[in-house]
Amino acid sequence: MITVAVDCMGGDVGPAVTLPACEAFLSRYPQAQLLLVGMPAAFGAWPQVKNNVRCRIVPASEVIAMDDTVEVALRKKKDSSMRVAIAQVKDGAAQAAVSAGNTGALMAIARYLLKTLDGIDRPAIATQLPNAKGGATTVLDLGANVDCTAEHLLQFALMGSALVSATGGKNPTVGLLNVGEEVIKGSEVIKKAGLLLRDAAEAGDLNFYGNVEGDDIFKGTTDIVICDGFVGNVALKASEGLATMISGFIRDEFSRNILTKLAAIVAYPVLSAFKKRVDHRRYNGAALMGLRGLVFKSHGSADAFAFEQALCRAYDAAHHNLLGNVRDRIEHARHLLVPQGSSSELHNVPTL
Amino acid sequence: MITVAVDCMGGDVGPAVTLPACEAFLSRYPQAQLLLVGMPAAFGAWPQVKNNVRCRIVPASEVIAMDDTVEVALRKKKDSSMRVAIAQVKDGAAQAAVSAGNTGALMAIARYLLKTLDGIDRPAIATQLPNAKGGATTVLDLGANVDCTAEHLLQFALMGSALVSATGGKNPTVGLLNVGEEVIKGSEVIKKAGLLLRDAAEAGDLNFYGNVEGDDIFKGTTDIVICDGFVGNVALKASEGLATMISGFIRDEFSRNILTKLAAIVAYPVLSAFKKRVDHRRYNGAALMGLRGLVFKSHGSADAFAFEQALCRAYDAAHHNLLGNVRDRIEHARHLLVPQGSSSELHNVPTL
Repeated sequence: MITVAVDCMGGDVGPAVTLPACEAFLSRYPQAQLLLVGMPAAFGAWPQVKNNVRCRIVPASEVIAMDDTVEVALRKKKDSSMRVAIAQVKDGAAQAAVSAGNTGALMAIARYLLKTLDGIDRPAIATQLPNAKGGATTVLDLGANVDCTAEHLLQFALMGSALVSATGGKNPTVGLLNVGEEVIKGSEVIKKAGLLLRDAAEAGDLNFYGNVEGDDIFKGTTDIVICDGFVGNVALKASEGLATMISGFIRDEFSRNILTKLAAIVAYPVLSAFKKRVDHRRYNGAALMGLRGLVFKSHGSADAFAFEQALCRAYDAAHHNLLGNVRDRIEHARHLLVPQGSSSELHNVPTL
Repeated sequence: MITVAVDCMGGDVGPAVTLPACEAFLSRYPQAQLLLVGMPAAFGAWPQVKNNVRCRIVPASEVIAMDDTVEVALRKKKDSSMRVAIAQVKDGAAQAAVSAGNTGALMAIARYLLKTLDGIDRPAIATQLPNAKGGATTVLDLGANVDCTAEHLLQFALMGSALVSATGGKNPTVGLLNVGEEVIKGSEVIKKAGLLLRDAAEAGDLNFYGNVEGDDIFKGTTDIVICDGFVGNVALKASEGLATMISGFIRDEFSRNILTKLAAIVAYPVLSAFKKRVDHRRYNGAALMGLRGLVFKSHGSADAFAFEQALCRAYDAAHHNLLGNVRDRIEHARHLLVPQGSSSELHNVPTL
């Protein structure tokens, strides 16, 4: 039996999104239990969740706002729903926590309460993006670390490999994001990371493909793409911006006049299939990797369907023992890992 | 009268693309002249271009291959069509040069022959990307500089402002690409760049908006977005990869079966309008900024329509005295510019 702790108050909407998502999740996973963390009054409107035998309410008296600073989240709101949810993981009452709240606060609290794993200097944020092969590419880091050393990138590669192989990918390939495929390309950090990754591959610690470029994320050239958090965040957001622009253009063109509106009706089944295929909600739920406990971040603007996916992702990770998998990978690669010091720039964690 | 020197041999295809593009360009610009640089035998099949009174063939006996190293391009092939085209600009025979050849070679040769402008440490590559406002966002650097200082980013901002204002944009806004809008976000280099840009704005050297995020490129939040070449290159290529994936999905869905194919016929005018709107060929032609002469880079895989756009862009830049505009901006901001040393890592210039 896997138990997931849910920050029911987090996100742009809060309980009106998180609780219907919990209901759908419980139907989908008959083996799952949920700890619903939040202000007790918030659950009144959702008796079907509140009274579900596989749910238990864990009260929390505060809520971290989307614009609260990390300092406020960490030092002032000690009874926030986010913190109480993560504390359930720390205390062993839950095997994973999920929140749609403020990314910076989530990372700071998770790191403060759970600590990083031995051999890991900095946690990273990993997510999946759809690719042209019909699968998904796992990308990390997405913004937790704006300045990275080569050793940090190696740690991300090990954590990404653990994440993908824990959920079914056999010997997943790792690509190092760069401005060209040749080994002489890139900054000094990237070139050094390439050498470390080659060493790790030779030692059997991971399956290194080599350098990849930005378009390889969506081509699906490798199962995993690693990069520093600045680059990953910009690539992710630029892609979101482009996808939004393109869907806006499609909508505009189909609603231009009566004829194009009729065309939209005829093309409706095709457009729906297309929309389903690129639906980013299916990929909601980024993993905070490298901590001594599983924490998943949902997009703040997630709807119930999207938040449900984040819950599923957290459940699957716990079910497949992601944490043990990461620990084993790190242990195996211990000979390559040199402590790099940790970053205290918590305010640098971006919104996702 | 503006004269543009064309490397007719460059690109994946060469004369079969560049010469039809020259023909179309000459019809569009009755005031333009072209210097057609290449192996004389290559022009035989295109008498209508070769014999045009506004064209003159400038022979070159060598061609730089797309996979030639910068060293080969610079030191071995001294009579390449690319080099001879740029030499026309140096010698004053042409006001701009255009090539679809190898980006690294083009940047290296342009820099070697033309030199950088006073006050500019490193040339940068600038291009336009379409935005949701129906206009275009100018982004630089796209890969010439993988490691940048804050001062380099300021130089990019000045050059970008000159580029956009030379071609009609009044007092264009500059955004600094970052992982969040708040001034405390980002690496030390980015934070320092933010301070320099604020100083420059106060001194009236440019119009600084503040930090922007990846999605702002496609939202069109600012006219110009500046970033280091690593980040810019990844963002550009990730966007290209996503756009290719999305158009592949649309094609797949519309060709799934007889019904969806009929829907495609009905939706054809809408799909064409959409396709035209996102047609990246319209934005072909990246400017190599910061040199003592105008050089434009076409995508290597450009077709004749796309290559023609690069020619138009080069013509417009020369016509609007882009070079003088850049010089004036740099001169005005001289008090803020401290030489930063130049990069010798020519092999780092990526393919575009």
